[in-house]
Amino acid sequence: MRLSKLVGNRYKEVPADISVMSHIMLLRGGYIRPVTNGIFSLYTPTKLIAQKIEAIIRKEMNYIDGQEVSMPVVMPQSMWEESGRYYSIGNEMVRFRDRTGSGMVLGMTHEEAAVHLVKDAASTYKSYPFMIYQIQTKFRDEARSRGGLIRVREFTMKDAYSFHTSQEDLDEYYEKCHLAYERIFALAGLPEVVSVKSDSGMMGGSVSHEFMLLCDAGEDTIVVCSECDYRANIEATSCIIESSSAEGSNEEITEVYTPDTTDIASVADFLKVPASMICKAIVYETEKEAGLAVVFIRGDLEVNEAKLRNIIDSDIFVARAEESAKVFENGFIGPRFIPEGIKVYIDESLKGIKSLVAGSGKKDYHIKGYCFDRDYNMPEYVNIAKPFDGCICPNCKKPAIKLTRGIEVGNIFELGQKYTKAMDMTYADINGELMNPIMGCYGIGVGRLIGSICEAKHDEHGPIWPITVAPWKVHICAVRADMEDVKTTAETLYSKLKQLGIEVIFDDRNLRAGAMFADADLLGVPVRVIVSPKNIENSRVEVVTRDKKYSDFYAIDDAVQRITELIEKLEKEIMSNVPNY
Amino acid sequence: MRLSKLVGNRYKEVPADISVMSHIMLLRGGYIRPVTNGIFSLYTPTKLIAQKIEAIIRKEMNYIDGQEVSMPVVMPQSMWEESGRYYSIGNEMVRFRDRTGSGMVLGMTHEEAAVHLVKDAASTYKSYPFMIYQIQTKFRDEARSRGGLIRVREFTMKDAYSFHTSQEDLDEYYEKCHLAYERIFALAGLPEVVSVKSDSGMMGGSVSHEFMLLCDAGEDTIVVCSECDYRANIEATSCIIESSSAEGSNEEITEVYTPDTTDIASVADFLKVPASMICKAIVYETEKEAGLAVVFIRGDLEVNEAKLRNIIDSDIFVARAEESAKVFENGFIGPRFIPEGIKVYIDESLKGIKSLVAGSGKKDYHIKGYCFDRDYNMPEYVNIAKPFDGCICPNCKKPAIKLTRGIEVGNIFELGQKYTKAMDMTYADINGELMNPIMGCYGIGVGRLIGSICEAKHDEHGPIWPITVAPWKVHICAVRADMEDVKTTAETLYSKLKQLGIEVIFDDRNLRAGAMFADADLLGVPVRVIVSPKNIENSRVEVVTRDKKYSDFYAIDDAVQRITELIEKLEKEIMSNVPNY
Repeated sequence: MRLSKLVGNRYKEVPADISVMSHIMLLRGGYIRPVTNGIFSLYTPTKLIAQKIEAIIRKEMNYIDGQEVSMPVVMPQSMWEESGRYYSIGNEMVRFRDRTGSGMVLGMTHEEAAVHLVKDAASTYKSYPFMIYQIQTKFRDEARSRGGLIRVREFTMKDAYSFHTSQEDLDEYYEKCHLAYERIFALAGLPEVVSVKSDSGMMGGSVSHEFMLLCDAGEDTIVVCSECDYRANIEATSCIIESSSAEGSNEEITEVYTPDTTDIASVADFLKVPASMICKAIVYETEKEAGLAVVFIRGDLEVNEAKLRNIIDSDIFVARAEESAKVFENGFIGPRFIPEGIKVYIDESLKGIKSLVAGSGKKDYHIKGYCFDRDYNMPEYVNIAKPFDGCICPNCKKPAIKLTRGIEVGNIFELGQKYTKAMDMTYADINGELMNPIMGCYGIGVGRLIGSICEAKHDEHGPIWPITVAPWKVHICAVRADMEDVKTTAETLYSKLKQLGIEVIFDDRNLRAGAMFADADLLGVPVRVIVSPKNIENSRVEVVTRDKKYSDFYAIDDAVQRITELIEKLEKEIMSNVPNY
Repeated sequence: MRLSKLVGNRYKEVPADISVMSHIMLLRGGYIRPVTNGIFSLYTPTKLIAQKIEAIIRKEMNYIDGQEVSMPVVMPQSMWEESGRYYSIGNEMVRFRDRTGSGMVLGMTHEEAAVHLVKDAASTYKSYPFMIYQIQTKFRDEARSRGGLIRVREFTMKDAYSFHTSQEDLDEYYEKCHLAYERIFALAGLPEVVSVKSDSGMMGGSVSHEFMLLCDAGEDTIVVCSECDYRANIEATSCIIESSSAEGSNEEITEVYTPDTTDIASVADFLKVPASMICKAIVYETEKEAGLAVVFIRGDLEVNEAKLRNIIDSDIFVARAEESAKVFENGFIGPRFIPEGIKVYIDESLKGIKSLVAGSGKKDYHIKGYCFDRDYNMPEYVNIAKPFDGCICPNCKKPAIKLTRGIEVGNIFELGQKYTKAMDMTYADINGELMNPIMGCYGIGVGRLIGSICEAKHDEHGPIWPITVAPWKVHICAVRADMEDVKTTAETLYSKLKQLGIEVIFDDRNLRAGAMFADADLLGVPVRVIVSPKNIENSRVEVVTRDKKYSDFYAIDDAVQRITELIEKLEKEIMSNVPNY
């Protein structure tokens, strides 16, 4: 490809109001063009990167016996009614009526379509296990698309669905797929992607992992133990929070006058007790039952709302003051006065504390000496406190938890029989009995992975594409292409490399060197070959890698051979980080 | 791939109520699964065929300097308002509102998105010409999806858009693309696809061609001259219809009483004149002006409504009797009494006829001796008669026109400046003046091409896939795989062929030969290798091609080598039909 013909502009200017680095780089480098909020067209370099990534994914999926299929973007509403998700998913799913008035949806995931596709094709146990996958367009009407390709509304995704006759078989396949995923990310140049335990969310199922690129631009919070290999999405973690005063004294409950102390800070200040000895009450409104729920938690802690959401099995939000005031004395809510019909959740952090300050239920009064174990009628504790740096790892029990941020680039779920039961997919087992297969599902967002690679691999001048996914492997810069020698040498090199099947981009524009190199930096091609009058004079070309780790001069006669070797070296570096099957 | 693991059932039974042969074959062979009206999931064999076709397309598009990009499925309404097509396209375009209430559409074609993508990236004449393309999902809410993959609502399409600074440059590129298309269809095993002149329809523009597979299952009618190379879609043709009685006598107009003669047959019978001497009147309702139009045409001819539609520039349909009766005397409509405001279209077939029978405008009366040239106030003739077998070719002027049916597998259009003007895309020409680029666009439906190949290449037992697009090249049938010798030989062959990178499907199911061969016929793989006890006894395997043109026995030791040669031979046969650049 000649750069003079490449469609797409590159810009020196940093776009205003954009903070995610990969977003900036992809806009500046002529990779993406926003069509509307969360929807992009992709220029050729991005399409080439996507194809490389898709080829990597395809190879690994085929290796673990995946069969590539194709399911539609537009699906009938009726199919989603069968699984029940037509009702449980909110307005992130696009719904419309076709010309005949039939309800249709745009696919944001394809569990239903996968079951529909294989339902009649696997009626005996002999056909199992099997896995189907596709690499296909999906649409999810995100309220908050952001970060360029990191979170979009329309995206290309590899989604795979496996079908099994036993939990053991699924577990085994799940592990295989986990390894395939590690290989895929390492092959794409991101060996630093880690898997973390995750929350299954709307997918249903139990065991699940997310593959995370840990970086500041991530929008997920990840809990990582610095002493063992424990890692989890904050939504799925169960960190242990030691009750700081399990040994406190066993005193009587007394009421104290605490005028105008409606928050933890003012109560702590007024009564001279630490926040960790105060029982905090937070009232939530739930979407599901349209009712209120109250959470009690240690005064120095926050609620992990994702976990609470899962426990309540409904979307939740902190109650509006006026809603809460209908049944509670806001600011003085306590465990002794819970109105009828209000569900109570007590966080484990309160367990064992013998003497708490808590709301009295009456305006301007708190109580002292409250102990849930003693004074609450059979308390059931739940783990819904948000972890913090230094809290206790649920695995190794050391106070070594760190919070970090991550971009989810893939996920794997054990789905169980949720969909096969709902959609009545059965097979005859060895005894002729009809059973529902057990499913797993496995996703990777192709565009998000491109954004993530860019996020992890760039310098201030542009992306540094790993050689396995780079749009081209070699970038030839012909400085002073108006000079015959330069032109001939560059053209010869270009055609020789192309003949060898090496992907080359050739900057034939005869710009000044600075502008040329700035563009080369933005295109991020791993091997740069500079043909210039000075180099030609010395019968050589200059070769540098985009990451600046390697730089040398090659004799013109040797150049093709040595460039080929350099490419192999870079590829081997990538391969050295890929785990084996 | 082992057939025992392939997902998808094959069926002996011919599905009821389906008439298109490829539709039957694709259902019976486990290629497609209907999700809902006009929407299919594809099983692995179809996905593999699609990938082969896409690779062929990609290579040819890259050869003619195409740059692969990606444009979205979901686009904002505002983009389609810019071009005006938001209003001119009917309910075949899906429209919906996103969660913020913004109007969105599903892309059925991407002229707008293509202009949007390149608009800012080609601001000087030096960047031209260039071509971008994508292979991507589209949705068109067809009222009449039919024929399996022949006409669907959701489909994968290669769509390409070229941009030029002069008509000559577009013409030149258009020819190049025409050749690339001929190559693509020949490479896909359909050298019999022909290009025909077409009607541009909703795309706008002037010159356009459709690539047609001529076959009975086609839904387009094609006009082909048997004396020259003239070929056109019936919607775009201008066949000449000789007026049978140009030499008729020059008589006075007289009124004749013709009771109850409200159609051509009864008038002809009553007055003893041939239908070709009668002026037929047909009243149309138009959607656009919500008014009526009347067409006069020779009594033995039909109206080519596609052409009339283009002339009126509105959807049209034959007027309901009660609508027509509001202004006309139905059955006796004639050229002498046209109510105010009714548009008249006179077909060329009436030109030169000196003495016509026509409606008088009054119930139960016709007129005789009418001559448009003499009696109508400055008649303007239009060519809107439907051609018929034996009418005159507009190119060689011989009466050698034949009507045939065809499936449109691709199309190419010269779009002109319709979109660049509407969307204000400009470049500075050599004098610094701002100009709108001239566009061409070029489409191929991947799924439809699969259906068409199946339509053209099958026998009563199943598809006969050309080797260049077949899901696998070799199909090994192990008859009596329970016998050690058979099993070992087949497995060895399977792994040796795979090692050579040859795509093999291996029927390892130990079925009886009949069932195995029936499945192999439905999978349509070009080279079949039969490993059976009898063959093993003779130290050989049997090799037959799916089209039955070739059958031989290969010594087991030679088998891999000879199979490779046979594959090469079949590939060469395909290549021999591919035109060169």
